[in-house]
Amino acid sequence: MYAQIKEELRRRILDGTYQPHQQLPSEADLMGGFGVSRITVRQALGDLQSENLIFKIHGKGTFVSKPKAFQELGQLEGFGEAMGRHGHETYNRLISARTVKAEATVAERLGLSKGASVTEIRRVRLLNREPISLDVSYFDKEVGDKLRRADLARQDIFSILENQLRVPLGEAELRIEAILADENLAQLLAVQEGSPILKMERLTSTQDGKPVDYEFLYYRGDAFQYRMRVGRHAS
Amino acid sequence: MYAQIKEELRRRILDGTYQPHQQLPSEADLMGGFGVSRITVRQALGDLQSENLIFKIHGKGTFVSKPKAFQELGQLEGFGEAMGRHGHETYNRLISARTVKAEATVAERLGLSKGASVTEIRRVRLLNREPISLDVSYFDKEVGDKLRRADLARQDIFSILENQLRVPLGEAELRIEAILADENLAQLLAVQEGSPILKMERLTSTQDGKPVDYEFLYYRGDAFQYRMRVGRHAS
Repeated sequence: MYAQIKEELRRRILDGTYQPHQQLPSEADLMGGFGVSRITVRQALGDLQSENLIFKIHGKGTFVSKPKAFQELGQLEGFGEAMGRHGHETYNRLISARTVKAEATVAERLGLSKGASVTEIRRVRLLNREPISLDVSYFDKEVGDKLRRADLARQDIFSILENQLRVPLGEAELRIEAILADENLAQLLAVQEGSPILKMERLTSTQDGKPVDYEFLYYRGDAFQYRMRVGRHAS
Repeated sequence: MYAQIKEELRRRILDGTYQPHQQLPSEADLMGGFGVSRITVRQALGDLQSENLIFKIHGKGTFVSKPKAFQELGQLEGFGEAMGRHGHETYNRLISARTVKAEATVAERLGLSKGASVTEIRRVRLLNREPISLDVSYFDKEVGDKLRRADLARQDIFSILENQLRVPLGEAELRIEAILADENLAQLLAVQEGSPILKMERLTSTQDGKPVDYEFLYYRGDAFQYRMRVGRHAS
């Protein structure tokens, strides 16, 4: 019995009858509408919650989850480029672009001497007008000075590097972790402090193997996922 | 000045003078040892903390971080297999293995009809004797019954499937997200509720494309990361 109700509610969510962030009817209304007990309704809602189709806010009710945006990991792509192909609108809010002395890790990974001048660019990336990530990117100053004159609000840095600065990109090294939002990240991404963050560290090199772009990407865990296909026996 | 102290402390951490989880000397001792002001010591410690080399516990002091274990994403491998190559010791604590009715998502992804009997296997994976992930895996009952008779404590399921059950594995679809530990996960992984968790959903198919293993892997965010290399223009 509860399985039927669960299926009907799932159908209404997936076909858009209930929109993302819309409140579901109350338990009482669902009991009346389906002619079932409170236990049955709760069982169905519990299952839908464990599938992340709905979420509860204490004292407010039950709401429809928004599907997570996702990006394929198997190919090196800028966020705007990848999201554009899925029909999403992106925009970058430039938080800061400045010259700083390279810390040890930044210098080492970019192949510079410690304390060398590097350009740090901080952008909050918006997906369909909502903040989805903070990107903190480091470049050697010469490249960085050119990037600072480009349209960082509307273009991916990968695309500026390749198309305007004529720097063909080769491979990148990725590291992916889960962390919690600190105060600064929480404020920039409009989430609570302590929210889950999918963190990507990415070092991108040119086609001839010179490191050019060292970045930290902090994605809202509630709104984003990476996807990829991988084979058992890679060539 | 503070840069020199930072470098010296970094050297002591990286060469093992200070061991993982060891407490650093107090601020007063560092001030005395280096002959510098408290501000200088704090600046150096602040930088090392932002590099995740050290962490502070309020009221207790400053400690050396443990390097995160990592697994390469570019090839489909079991955790034991991957960690073994890095010289780590792994072991699996079997939490439960039981027959359940497939929920909608599980049934759909395994290509079964809803409510079909599936085997659910829950294991906590230990890395160097500490819990690092909870793996929840679903199989069609026929395969699952055979797996339940295998050595799930010491062997990867991938390896049992391939070597004992003669099921050659092909490709897998991965989805990677960041979430927070709920009460159950926190208890199993020996972390606080609300700690960051790197979640992987993985559907593995046989070489002829039949889905065989649908899993949810929940890694401790403080102890684990994924790594991979990716090219700008994938073939």
